[in-house]
Amino acid sequence: MTPATSLFTPVEADLQILADNLKQLVGNRHPILFAAAEHLFGAGGKRIRPAIVLLISRATMLEEDITQRHRRLAEITEMIHTASLVHDDVVDESQMRRGVPTVHSLFGNRIAVLAGDFLFAQSSWYLANLDNLEVVKLLSEVIMDLATGEIQQGMNRFDSSLAIETYLQKSYYKTASLIANSAKAAGLLSEVPSETAQHLYNYGRNLGLAFQIVDDILDFTSTTDTLGKPAGSDLRSGNLTAPVLFALEEKPYLEVLIERQFAQAEDLEQALALIQDSRGIQQARELAAHHAKLAAEDIEILPPSESRQALIDITEYVLSRLY
Amino acid sequence: MTPATSLFTPVEADLQILADNLKQLVGNRHPILFAAAEHLFGAGGKRIRPAIVLLISRATMLEEDITQRHRRLAEITEMIHTASLVHDDVVDESQMRRGVPTVHSLFGNRIAVLAGDFLFAQSSWYLANLDNLEVVKLLSEVIMDLATGEIQQGMNRFDSSLAIETYLQKSYYKTASLIANSAKAAGLLSEVPSETAQHLYNYGRNLGLAFQIVDDILDFTSTTDTLGKPAGSDLRSGNLTAPVLFALEEKPYLEVLIERQFAQAEDLEQALALIQDSRGIQQARELAAHHAKLAAEDIEILPPSESRQALIDITEYVLSRLY
Repeated sequence: MTPATSLFTPVEADLQILADNLKQLVGNRHPILFAAAEHLFGAGGKRIRPAIVLLISRATMLEEDITQRHRRLAEITEMIHTASLVHDDVVDESQMRRGVPTVHSLFGNRIAVLAGDFLFAQSSWYLANLDNLEVVKLLSEVIMDLATGEIQQGMNRFDSSLAIETYLQKSYYKTASLIANSAKAAGLLSEVPSETAQHLYNYGRNLGLAFQIVDDILDFTSTTDTLGKPAGSDLRSGNLTAPVLFALEEKPYLEVLIERQFAQAEDLEQALALIQDSRGIQQARELAAHHAKLAAEDIEILPPSESRQALIDITEYVLSRLY
Repeated sequence: MTPATSLFTPVEADLQILADNLKQLVGNRHPILFAAAEHLFGAGGKRIRPAIVLLISRATMLEEDITQRHRRLAEITEMIHTASLVHDDVVDESQMRRGVPTVHSLFGNRIAVLAGDFLFAQSSWYLANLDNLEVVKLLSEVIMDLATGEIQQGMNRFDSSLAIETYLQKSYYKTASLIANSAKAAGLLSEVPSETAQHLYNYGRNLGLAFQIVDDILDFTSTTDTLGKPAGSDLRSGNLTAPVLFALEEKPYLEVLIERQFAQAEDLEQALALIQDSRGIQQARELAAHHAKLAAEDIEILPPSESRQALIDITEYVLSRLY
């Protein structure tokens, strides 16, 4: 996902500060992790999560500048996200991510586990030092959700009876929870009323679900080059996403192929063809569009501003990746 | 370390409740982790850390019963400790721990990384819900220290110029920080005065250092059977502990053997013989005894009780493991 940079214009300078801080954080304290830090926080990162936190911070602090605590929250968000990616890559044995080799394939499991633990630990510590118990609770819930989501995804591999609701719940745990809770936390740091905080949470939840559904569609419609990892890799590994679950309602033979885990030659190709021939991808698009629309409605609770407009534009940008 | 159970008599019933809670926690929510949970929280665990938290809780709540928050803190302590062990075993590629195969050797890296992340995540969440910002800060500092200690240990492998102070700092990060900060946190939950809280911290710090030094001595003086892992394995892996660092002052040839990482046949045997022939083990014993004695003095700030006596007895028990 590489957003047109113009989306983030209102927080471009903030994102530059954030990138510098994150690289220093890991590299300076532990030379052994320096290479990993460059790799993790270097040019490749898209920083969508901290951008959303910073945009919400600016959109809720219109009269004043954002505080150091808003900035710290944005850093925490990116650190938690990165820590979880690094460990997921170990767990899923992924070789490529964002078009570059993963930390564990480049530096080994040792460094990948250490780097992830260090980032989780540092983010817990930063979090505690925000001195806001409600924010601590929101973000520690995210860390729980990330672990729960990864475990649930592992348990549901090749389960063709998976309900779309279970898929959405897993997508909430793995993607939307972080965006939802950090969006709400940014609002709490600006001392917004609790009704506004709830809308910010809903914005993040719906945007996160739309993100994840779109990512899952792109795994079927993009090339390996565009994705930065092999296309169709979710299906191959038994991770059944929205397009597959919708296609299963139309194509009963797909179930046979999935349940035997694509054991026979051509099974995977045949499954991909059945999905392309179904309304699965279209239905998944509609589901993503539904959540993106809800997100745009949620954010309208904020007063108009350049940052609010960027938050609305992001909901459209997410869908535009499909075309 | 298998303490005479009588040491924990004042909190024996509490420890039984804790063991049941911990097994349910992991197993019930995620069947995939059930086997790992049984393995982690089953009969083998010695639960020294939660026992210390519970004893301090009882020794500081003499008039009343301990609260659910004291119990929760004891659980958090054991979860953080266990999570860190599971990830350390992945990082160090250990095959055995406490005389049983490690989680990663039994269930693979996938489950070991997941189980550790889940335990860290759950402990962060429990921690936030203790609703005490100072306790959150203390324990999040521990999580940082554990990651820092593991990274530092990796960086210092086979470094024969390592100062004893650096070894003690690493031992604080990896072992004493958890005991010190959770001891202080137990006091804070009982609302002890800040001077008492500081003594509780010092008790945990000194006891933790004594624990670690004794463990490091046993790696040279015990048999593989008693240790539950191969004897001499610290030295073999380049983890230079107190007996080695003291021996290096007397036996310059030891440095040659370490710096070439025991590359030649008999190097390791020769190094072990040089250490046995030095005053290294005796000096390490004296260092452990020094910290155990300081711990006993620190805890005397509490009013006399059966629990306080147990906390004093633990400082003697730690040293008794050497004889």
